[in-house]
Amino acid sequence: MPHQPIHAQINPPARLLMGPGPISADPRVLRAMSAQLVGQYDPAMSAYMVETMALYREVFRTANQHTLLVDGTSRAGIEAALVSLLEPGDRVLVPVFGRFGHLLVEIAERCGAEVHTVAVPWGEVVDAEQVERAVVAVRPKVLAVVQGDTSTTMCQPLADLGEVCRRHGVLFYCDATASLGGNAFEADAWGLDIATAGLQKCLGGPSGSAPITISPRAAEVIEGRRHVEAGLTEESDEPRGTRIASNYFDLAMVMDYWGPRRLNHHTEATTMLYGARECARLLVEEGLDQAVERHRLHGTAMLAGVAGLGLGVFGDPAHKMNNVVAVEIPGSLGAAGGERVRAALLADFGIEIGTSFGPLHGRVWRIGTMGHNARRDAVLTTLAALEQVMRAEGVPVTAGGGVGAAREVYQGVAA
Amino acid sequence: MPHQPIHAQINPPARLLMGPGPISADPRVLRAMSAQLVGQYDPAMSAYMVETMALYREVFRTANQHTLLVDGTSRAGIEAALVSLLEPGDRVLVPVFGRFGHLLVEIAERCGAEVHTVAVPWGEVVDAEQVERAVVAVRPKVLAVVQGDTSTTMCQPLADLGEVCRRHGVLFYCDATASLGGNAFEADAWGLDIATAGLQKCLGGPSGSAPITISPRAAEVIEGRRHVEAGLTEESDEPRGTRIASNYFDLAMVMDYWGPRRLNHHTEATTMLYGARECARLLVEEGLDQAVERHRLHGTAMLAGVAGLGLGVFGDPAHKMNNVVAVEIPGSLGAAGGERVRAALLADFGIEIGTSFGPLHGRVWRIGTMGHNARRDAVLTTLAALEQVMRAEGVPVTAGGGVGAAREVYQGVAA
Repeated sequence: MPHQPIHAQINPPARLLMGPGPISADPRVLRAMSAQLVGQYDPAMSAYMVETMALYREVFRTANQHTLLVDGTSRAGIEAALVSLLEPGDRVLVPVFGRFGHLLVEIAERCGAEVHTVAVPWGEVVDAEQVERAVVAVRPKVLAVVQGDTSTTMCQPLADLGEVCRRHGVLFYCDATASLGGNAFEADAWGLDIATAGLQKCLGGPSGSAPITISPRAAEVIEGRRHVEAGLTEESDEPRGTRIASNYFDLAMVMDYWGPRRLNHHTEATTMLYGARECARLLVEEGLDQAVERHRLHGTAMLAGVAGLGLGVFGDPAHKMNNVVAVEIPGSLGAAGGERVRAALLADFGIEIGTSFGPLHGRVWRIGTMGHNARRDAVLTTLAALEQVMRAEGVPVTAGGGVGAAREVYQGVAA
Repeated sequence: MPHQPIHAQINPPARLLMGPGPISADPRVLRAMSAQLVGQYDPAMSAYMVETMALYREVFRTANQHTLLVDGTSRAGIEAALVSLLEPGDRVLVPVFGRFGHLLVEIAERCGAEVHTVAVPWGEVVDAEQVERAVVAVRPKVLAVVQGDTSTTMCQPLADLGEVCRRHGVLFYCDATASLGGNAFEADAWGLDIATAGLQKCLGGPSGSAPITISPRAAEVIEGRRHVEAGLTEESDEPRGTRIASNYFDLAMVMDYWGPRRLNHHTEATTMLYGARECARLLVEEGLDQAVERHRLHGTAMLAGVAGLGLGVFGDPAHKMNNVVAVEIPGSLGAAGGERVRAALLADFGIEIGTSFGPLHGRVWRIGTMGHNARRDAVLTTLAALEQVMRAEGVPVTAGGGVGAAREVYQGVAA
């Protein structure tokens, strides 16, 4: 084996993460995560799990008993939802208005589902009537949709889609990873059957845990496919239905693990659970409505600020997510200049803003204001630095135009 | 929505976790995990990922380029390995000598594989000749085996199985979750094609990240099934082979994410990565051979100690894992008394020891000495407390017999 250098302790450079996520974690979340472990069946652990379920019911605005965590990144939550609902050959309808719609398509395909899409151009959202026509034509088992797609910054209205699903007996799944906590979300009022999220956006934590809520209707479908592992229990748990194609993402087993039976499945990721619980605790302490309003305020200030710097914004403003804005890279910079601006922001100011995917690659920066970084100082610092860096690149900018426009938004609002 | 109580900060009770894992995390790992985040494409993040790969090459004793983390618990690593290797209809052979062999069977079945087993009674390991006969009969694509099965405390010898695989052109997968770092493990010398682990055993971290190493031979099989997500890139990545049935566990995409292309897949769980890196860094700093010897020493002391208390031990002593012992619950206690002892240890001494699964349920306690808790004070404290609790239950025990016998093992060894 080649000689390996001695590696240093973890000591990351100071960063203000103002991209589309992950963003800087709330220091209180990191503190919670530094607590020592307890055993997975310790009464204290079971109590933390029960509390985490209660807290996420408030975050998702639901009375669903089955509100828990999937141990993985937000994408793990999506896959758990889809693979547990969809049997091979089931039809699923996916409205696609950005990259993460494609992700739902691709995960559903891997579940063996027959996938149908309703696509609109990037920068728009999907119309409920258009979806209803497709539902009537396709008769899907599941409608799967992203709420906030950071690739386009669009926030899909969900209430009307929920009504469509109810009218036609369709299960309604939503990926709320990028939007939850920073944009209104009402799992029960909007008729969601499953919603999933991640910690690394408006929840202010690190990636690695996927909160999920499951309606009684969805739980019944999933429990119809329940199989208990051999070697695990001597009870006779009769297998039923088509077995879920994944063990790790088998929500029937995950619900048993989180439920009163506490039946062994994975070994709960204790530190991530501590973090997920603290993310929700802080949101509930602040109040969900207040948190959404905070994201709206700072998102509006950032939007005004980039406009004040003379920059254009991509996408339908009526449906923009509160927590991220797609800023058009000035034509004089081009794609390469856009990357130089991002590199200079990072190197000279320790500020990260995002690049883009697919058709928007090289055309827009994505600037986030979310979670712990939905703050006045974070917004103004980012705008001040962006002005300096663009000036150094020779882009004509109004001196103080960004910070000034943002300040106007903040006028009369207590800091 | 019902009114929810205000939840307190995370503040777990003090515990000494001496079960089969998770065990108490090394405080240095928790400190590393409390560091603030950087962006997933930050140069600092890419450097940490490259360092983590180098460190786990040392831990697994391999030169495999593709040595990385799967973002989930140890079970996520197992599923990623099997679903990426196995296509529906592929044959896999699984030696079963405990619960976690059954888990491999069940995960492989969900991959659609045709699963064959070689089973031995709990408490024994599998003979290489027996496996070779089965390989000749079954002609499997993959041999999948657990190294250390904590359900029985047995440690399966692997070198001979590796030779069997080489002779017959079989891919060799090993689940080293419970053994890695505390028992000899040689990925390359033993001919492993994929090995996976978790942090929560001998590596001294929390559950939630699954280190994995993938041989060039296995990588070639997996890359033969590579498909890139739509909406992600404009490059024409030609899809090939049978698509892997999971997106999250698609190791072809995970290898691209960790490789020089850094092609977007999941959002790496930064805090878990910090923890996983620190676990490996501490092991490499100590030296892998020294870490195994430390586990052997404290495991031997615990074994001597429980014998010194007059307790029997389950399983073939020649193949016992270094880091866990299955202690027969005295007949006078019965299963209920065994649970009373565990509860009293936890309530009065803050010490957790483990219960058991399946055929051993109610028959043995499982006591671990691993990771941060493979320490003299942890061993002696556990034995002292166990003596007191058993005496209170009316079990005849030799006063000082456990601690005394362990002390003899430590004689002449620097504390």
